[in-house]
Amino acid sequence: MKVMVGGTFDPLHDGHRFLISRAFDIAGPDGKVIIGLTSDAFADRKSHPIHPYKDREADLLAFLKEKNVPPIWMIEELHDRFGSTLDADFDALIVSEETFPVAKEINQLRRNKKRPCVEIHQIRCVLAEDGKWISSTRIWRGEIDVHGHVIDHQSQASTKSDDV
Amino acid sequence: MKVMVGGTFDPLHDGHRFLISRAFDIAGPDGKVIIGLTSDAFADRKSHPIHPYKDREADLLAFLKEKNVPPIWMIEELHDRFGSTLDADFDALIVSEETFPVAKEINQLRRNKKRPCVEIHQIRCVLAEDGKWISSTRIWRGEIDVHGHVIDHQSQASTKSDDV
Repeated sequence: MKVMVGGTFDPLHDGHRFLISRAFDIAGPDGKVIIGLTSDAFADRKSHPIHPYKDREADLLAFLKEKNVPPIWMIEELHDRFGSTLDADFDALIVSEETFPVAKEINQLRRNKKRPCVEIHQIRCVLAEDGKWISSTRIWRGEIDVHGHVIDHQSQASTKSDDV
Repeated sequence: MKVMVGGTFDPLHDGHRFLISRAFDIAGPDGKVIIGLTSDAFADRKSHPIHPYKDREADLLAFLKEKNVPPIWMIEELHDRFGSTLDADFDALIVSEETFPVAKEINQLRRNKKRPCVEIHQIRCVLAEDGKWISSTRIWRGEIDVHGHVIDHQSQASTKSDDV
């Protein structure tokens, strides 16, 4: 199958890694995976500073190499929420619970354009060790790391003061 | 993967066939497919008469035989919207656009019970030849057949009157 997945991936946390991994599973070894990566201008709408496209792309490439995925993927720069999803011929969107509404909107817009709708695969939620979602915002706030481990600022501060 | 799918399947139309086929695809040859089939008492809430469980089960079994699916499935009688989905260990629900809200509710209820949420795979819409959905209600009303072909009552009536 030809599947599409997208995001800002800043930083590339365990939720993103699982999302991208599932995209490859669903596509199958003979499929195709289009990974949409938001442009700097589009990502700029986020509530916190974003790393440059080139750095985010480098992290993504390192992850794909580490996972040793088959060479069935390509990266597409996203200048808006939809990228090429409204007109492309493909089979499924792979999304998180958070991005499901965008997928639903894509199908509605495709229907308006008389294009066939696509399947939507919503992955299971990936939780941090505190049972809440892993999200870039939480990582940026310093609550958790990219693997969902809770960052204990109090213990860090006391270690720091012990060091002095 | 272990996946679950469900319905009343009365009659088993092309939308249902596609839904069940995709459940087997997503499960994979080493997976498991649990097919929930509504009980007569539960199906009775529908706006139109429903064939008995045994007949609906026989149609389902005939379809599985015709498709020559691997022996990785079992049929579970559904006495409510959820069946065993709230407590079972499984990986994904396979749904249509129409039944997606039930899957979302299942994940919410699992979360309340501190059970891991599952993936939700929404299949593409299966349309009748008039571009509208294939549905049991439309078939029951005599608008379309189980393959989504529009039933031309006018031409049927004129053929009938010609016959006389």
